[in-house]
Amino acid sequence: MVRRLVIIGGDAAGMSAAAQARRMTAPEELEIVAFERGRYTSYAACGLPYLIGGLVQSADRLVARSPEEHRANGIDVRMRHEVVGIDTRATTVSVRDLDSGNESVMRYDELLIATGASGIVPPWPGVDAKGVLQLRTLDDAAEMERVISTGAHRAVMVGAGYIGLEVAENLLARGLAVTVVERQDAAMGAVLDADMAEAIAQAMIAAGVDLRLRTEVTGIATASGSATAVETGEGSIAADLVVIGLGVRPNADLARAAGIGVGKTGGIVVDDRQRTGTAHVWAAGDCVESRHRVTGRSVVVALGTHANKQGRNAGTNIAGGDAAFGGVLGTAITRFRDVEIGRTGLTLHEAATAGFDAFAVITESVNRAGYYPGAQRMRIKIIAERGSGRLLGAQIVGGEDAGKRIDVLATALWNEMTVQEVGGMDLSYAPPFSPVWDPVLLAAGKTAAKV
Amino acid sequence: MVRRLVIIGGDAAGMSAAAQARRMTAPEELEIVAFERGRYTSYAACGLPYLIGGLVQSADRLVARSPEEHRANGIDVRMRHEVVGIDTRATTVSVRDLDSGNESVMRYDELLIATGASGIVPPWPGVDAKGVLQLRTLDDAAEMERVISTGAHRAVMVGAGYIGLEVAENLLARGLAVTVVERQDAAMGAVLDADMAEAIAQAMIAAGVDLRLRTEVTGIATASGSATAVETGEGSIAADLVVIGLGVRPNADLARAAGIGVGKTGGIVVDDRQRTGTAHVWAAGDCVESRHRVTGRSVVVALGTHANKQGRNAGTNIAGGDAAFGGVLGTAITRFRDVEIGRTGLTLHEAATAGFDAFAVITESVNRAGYYPGAQRMRIKIIAERGSGRLLGAQIVGGEDAGKRIDVLATALWNEMTVQEVGGMDLSYAPPFSPVWDPVLLAAGKTAAKV
Repeated sequence: MVRRLVIIGGDAAGMSAAAQARRMTAPEELEIVAFERGRYTSYAACGLPYLIGGLVQSADRLVARSPEEHRANGIDVRMRHEVVGIDTRATTVSVRDLDSGNESVMRYDELLIATGASGIVPPWPGVDAKGVLQLRTLDDAAEMERVISTGAHRAVMVGAGYIGLEVAENLLARGLAVTVVERQDAAMGAVLDADMAEAIAQAMIAAGVDLRLRTEVTGIATASGSATAVETGEGSIAADLVVIGLGVRPNADLARAAGIGVGKTGGIVVDDRQRTGTAHVWAAGDCVESRHRVTGRSVVVALGTHANKQGRNAGTNIAGGDAAFGGVLGTAITRFRDVEIGRTGLTLHEAATAGFDAFAVITESVNRAGYYPGAQRMRIKIIAERGSGRLLGAQIVGGEDAGKRIDVLATALWNEMTVQEVGGMDLSYAPPFSPVWDPVLLAAGKTAAKV
Repeated sequence: MVRRLVIIGGDAAGMSAAAQARRMTAPEELEIVAFERGRYTSYAACGLPYLIGGLVQSADRLVARSPEEHRANGIDVRMRHEVVGIDTRATTVSVRDLDSGNESVMRYDELLIATGASGIVPPWPGVDAKGVLQLRTLDDAAEMERVISTGAHRAVMVGAGYIGLEVAENLLARGLAVTVVERQDAAMGAVLDADMAEAIAQAMIAAGVDLRLRTEVTGIATASGSATAVETGEGSIAADLVVIGLGVRPNADLARAAGIGVGKTGGIVVDDRQRTGTAHVWAAGDCVESRHRVTGRSVVVALGTHANKQGRNAGTNIAGGDAAFGGVLGTAITRFRDVEIGRTGLTLHEAATAGFDAFAVITESVNRAGYYPGAQRMRIKIIAERGSGRLLGAQIVGGEDAGKRIDVLATALWNEMTVQEVGGMDLSYAPPFSPVWDPVLLAAGKTAAKV
């Protein structure tokens, strides 16, 4: 008898699961139905800022696999269909066709919840006005394009996190005047310690961004239903485009309403196989909480990398295989123009909050041998545990080739290395690539000297 | 009473040890005397090709620390002094002043042998002719500069290893016609599997190198004492500059003559603290053998990175501290023009020779999200153990940002990870830096599927 896998959500986690389960099972064995309330499947949300900036030529390029391609692959994708309820005893979902308004019920043998996350939008007066946007979907990007092409020239970006930096850079590239408003006292303040963020603020200001730190938004001024200014505790900032980038929260309401376990983080609780506590119900991607490998605690980290891995693992496990998710470190990377930014693990502040007796050392280095032309500076901060020297986290800010070096430290962190051990590793060296003491080794060695 | 540390050799290992011991002890406690037979201390031999090519402006820039600087730092460096004998029972060394010819004897409390390595030069007829050089010292570079500036325009590079590639690139930059002669059937054949080396051969040929693989040199033709051609099994190649880059062997004769243990590799035997088997005698750098972390066997790897680490560790230990060398993986990197080359661990061939039931998977990937402009291709080969999936080695050949990714795999190898584990790691992702599945994760995942 054919079993049926129902998937709620047609993006990274959902469709990775679908593709993997399809690879491992025949259609006669497993029917796969995926419901997606939007108009796109499997698209690269991380590329949206670059679509706005013009580096990416068309929205099509961001769609990794269209609904038609998934169907050709034996996956029954139903677009503009929203799952509005789950009955875990009857093992059914209620589905609304958003175009016709019709509702129907479908039985499942296995259910995967891959509902993703939604951007956090505070209940500010005027927040629903035209010209106030997030940049999370291709529809958001189309709307932003419309606002820009109908004459917007003063943008305010609310939030100086990853999206804030990337949107600011790309709106500058489109010729808009850009103000970035941030409540904290540093750009990237949620993911870097303030002493590492200074170079980013400098780069933003040098690029022409009007950066307003320690500034709280209180509302959006409007005229005829369109945004005209962002109101802050420090005064009003004229704006015909307002972009909100204040992080996301998991879409877990559907699961919660069905009695499926949701953690304090707001994410659906799953084990390392992506099983929820409810029989035959799985969850993956931005809607779940994951185990942080350093603290052991549950965290919500909405990133395409995890969504893809968890989705694929869920697909493997549903198809009868066995794949475990190893947890997250909070590794991330971005750039603002020529400044590359990488981070992994805990900041010094996070380490202290998590109860570690932590200390940190910042090391200045370069990306090439000192005598080799074009050497660019980088700054590495290593956070370690006093006494043991256990690596707890790292941050890198610098020029060319700085950012991706974070992966070496992420790999070290994954393996629970001490900074003493990291300092002795056999990393590659040649003059065009690093000084004889690679910046990562140097930083670990300097930190080890303070353990 | 003042103890005396005598160091034989004033380059990376010797002077790192001296500097570290000086940092940790007062001159009243420990006298440090270093003998160097050449005219320079602490210079960056790896930069020599770029000095020839003109990327590095002057020889001075390659000298990290001059004899005067070392002396100002409390280290008694004696230049043009060669240690010609060690008496381990009397705890003395015999030293010849190469300028005066005088010999003297000096007592040591601790002795560090850091005599480095010498280039392998086969006993070819004509090999001592003018215009036949290696490129291992600043004096070699000065002589090469002289040969070029007096009109050499046809160079033959013997050996297509690291030095071969780097010298060929830089001689091309100087306008010489360059032929590279290699006995094996691939460039970089000693460190890469042949299926990874093909792209390097293509890049060399595209750059204008006359690449002669499977070609054995039999001698050097000369006229009036200067080289005129390289004779090979495949005919004669006209040349007024011949550069030999066939690897190195440890300078262990002095140690051997003194009864200090030398291994089958030709390197001095040391433990992980850099102690030889003889009391109060230490050794570090290119003259010693090291433990390969994957095979557990002793190997000789002449690289500045190891020399610096071992030297520093020796200095720490001699000064009463405790530092252990963790072994080598054989990690290395270089580039030929736009092609970056990284490797770590065992090649498939080496793994088989070492007795592993090994297999390999090659994965093609790119350095950026597919939709992000300027994405460049890279090829990763992963060598793993059948059954367990234990990572044994990796090779990367590709464009921008390809080479340094080898450090992630080196870190994984250092920690004895399986390819299954590597494929699940939390590495950084953003469109300008990698596809959502980083090339390293992708390569590990594809390999894991074949375990």
